[in-house]
Amino acid sequence: MKELCIGVDIGGTTVKLGIFNISGELIKKWEIKTNISDNGKYLLSDVASSIREKLAEMNKDIKDCVGMGMGIPGPVRSDGYVEVCVNLGLRDIYPAKVISELLDGIPVQVANDANVAALGEAWQGGAKGCEDIVMFTLGTGVGGGVILSGKIVAGRHGLGGEVGHIHVRKDEKEHCNCGGRGCLEQIASATGIAREAKRALSASDKDSLLRKHGEKISAKNVFDAAKQGDEIALGVVDTAMDYLGTAIASVALVIDPETFVIGGGVSMAGDFLIEKLQEKYDYYTAISDNKPKLALAKLGNDAGIYGAAKMVL
Amino acid sequence: MKELCIGVDIGGTTVKLGIFNISGELIKKWEIKTNISDNGKYLLSDVASSIREKLAEMNKDIKDCVGMGMGIPGPVRSDGYVEVCVNLGLRDIYPAKVISELLDGIPVQVANDANVAALGEAWQGGAKGCEDIVMFTLGTGVGGGVILSGKIVAGRHGLGGEVGHIHVRKDEKEHCNCGGRGCLEQIASATGIAREAKRALSASDKDSLLRKHGEKISAKNVFDAAKQGDEIALGVVDTAMDYLGTAIASVALVIDPETFVIGGGVSMAGDFLIEKLQEKYDYYTAISDNKPKLALAKLGNDAGIYGAAKMVL
Repeated sequence: MKELCIGVDIGGTTVKLGIFNISGELIKKWEIKTNISDNGKYLLSDVASSIREKLAEMNKDIKDCVGMGMGIPGPVRSDGYVEVCVNLGLRDIYPAKVISELLDGIPVQVANDANVAALGEAWQGGAKGCEDIVMFTLGTGVGGGVILSGKIVAGRHGLGGEVGHIHVRKDEKEHCNCGGRGCLEQIASATGIAREAKRALSASDKDSLLRKHGEKISAKNVFDAAKQGDEIALGVVDTAMDYLGTAIASVALVIDPETFVIGGGVSMAGDFLIEKLQEKYDYYTAISDNKPKLALAKLGNDAGIYGAAKMVL
Repeated sequence: MKELCIGVDIGGTTVKLGIFNISGELIKKWEIKTNISDNGKYLLSDVASSIREKLAEMNKDIKDCVGMGMGIPGPVRSDGYVEVCVNLGLRDIYPAKVISELLDGIPVQVANDANVAALGEAWQGGAKGCEDIVMFTLGTGVGGGVILSGKIVAGRHGLGGEVGHIHVRKDEKEHCNCGGRGCLEQIASATGIAREAKRALSASDKDSLLRKHGEKISAKNVFDAAKQGDEIALGVVDTAMDYLGTAIASVALVIDPETFVIGGGVSMAGDFLIEKLQEKYDYYTAISDNKPKLALAKLGNDAGIYGAAKMVL
């Protein structure tokens, strides 16, 4: 009987791998370096070999696996085609087909890593048991994933879950990486929160716990100072949560999922963040009290391998 | 062989009914008055009787029908339950069950009217043949509907497609009907556009084709004057399309459908509206040129009966 499944999360520097039983328990977890030499030529075969080795160590075999799922850091068409994945050097490839051939033809599914992480949180994380969730990942940028009826909504042009580029701020002067101006990512990412803090400090003469960090100020510094009641830090948190709340409310009024999951490094601020966010979210969803809930992500860096494994179950 | 299906669209004053063949052709269309006496007690039986009569006139019978779909002006839970439909007086009812019993047990589906209209446009209208669309209906208010994989996304709390209440304007002082402030509906509905025009006229000394309309100014007046190059009217159209473009772009970056369909009375401004909107939409989706298209609705007031019929096919 096939009792295992494999989840793989390919990042720019590290590949995370996990072997799960089919009821969703993580049995084995390990990492290898992401081999991007020669435009990722060896990447997929390295992944396949590593899986074979690990299964052998466990006295198991590919035959014991239902299948394998994989998240990659770039757009994946719903038929699995990858036009280009800049970070890995991959181009014009169906990675699922390649990996499947290397692993005795087992079923393989590939999707965008942010979408896959959202699926992981819906399966075993902050929205465990929910069929309809939207995840906002507040890291260096702001990413996201949409899960409806338990399936990833990748979108017709690969833009599904690109919530970081929702336009929220009219008066933003600087450009976002996407070429736009006033994107959520410019305000509510770790980078954005740090930038807002620098702006707030230079616009004010007030004393602040944040001043000691100088140019190295981080989103964590901002939340830590806000938790201690620092006025400037509280203002920055208020601004970031205001725009994040606006974006989340918009999504609630379009697809109305069960739960929003907030993940990424910034979400380590925990319940404090959720409380501040809830206030703003409520303001922007005045239409109804009966609406999607807010929850913290729970799987951290493992969300990707969980979601990847779930894709083949 | 069952060759027909029935689509019903219940409005506050009129019930629209249509008999279709199963390939999507509208064969017969008629209307009856919406009977809301005694809290809608007779409404559903009136609808059922009218259908029986019309079929008899056509020498057809309920037995020739695959089923019936119905749109109602209020929230419908995905299991068909209606807690309350204020406009019709209905409360605590499964309307599909009631109608089905009146029509010899044929399959009946009921959903919110805006969602049903979106399904109609996806089936035979402005997005004919598309599986994934989002419709924005610019009427007295702004409504909408989300169709993914050919199915209505009603949402977990009935908020799916409530795109009129997406928050877009930070500096709005007046309240929206929903209790919020700065909703899309306050700017891009027919009412909102007229209000913006009055605001613009009173804030300016400039001459304008709009001045002759006084307090009775309408969204149509604004678009007509804008098409003639009227500066104030062009400014109002620019503002309305700017906020509508922001909202549409947000939806593109969440679920990325094939097409957005713009309907409702305001959409009678036609290609002129789409051109102005496209410019704004492009600005707010700087991330990619490969994205959902914009299209005008095509079915007008018949979208509801089309979509209703499609629900049972």
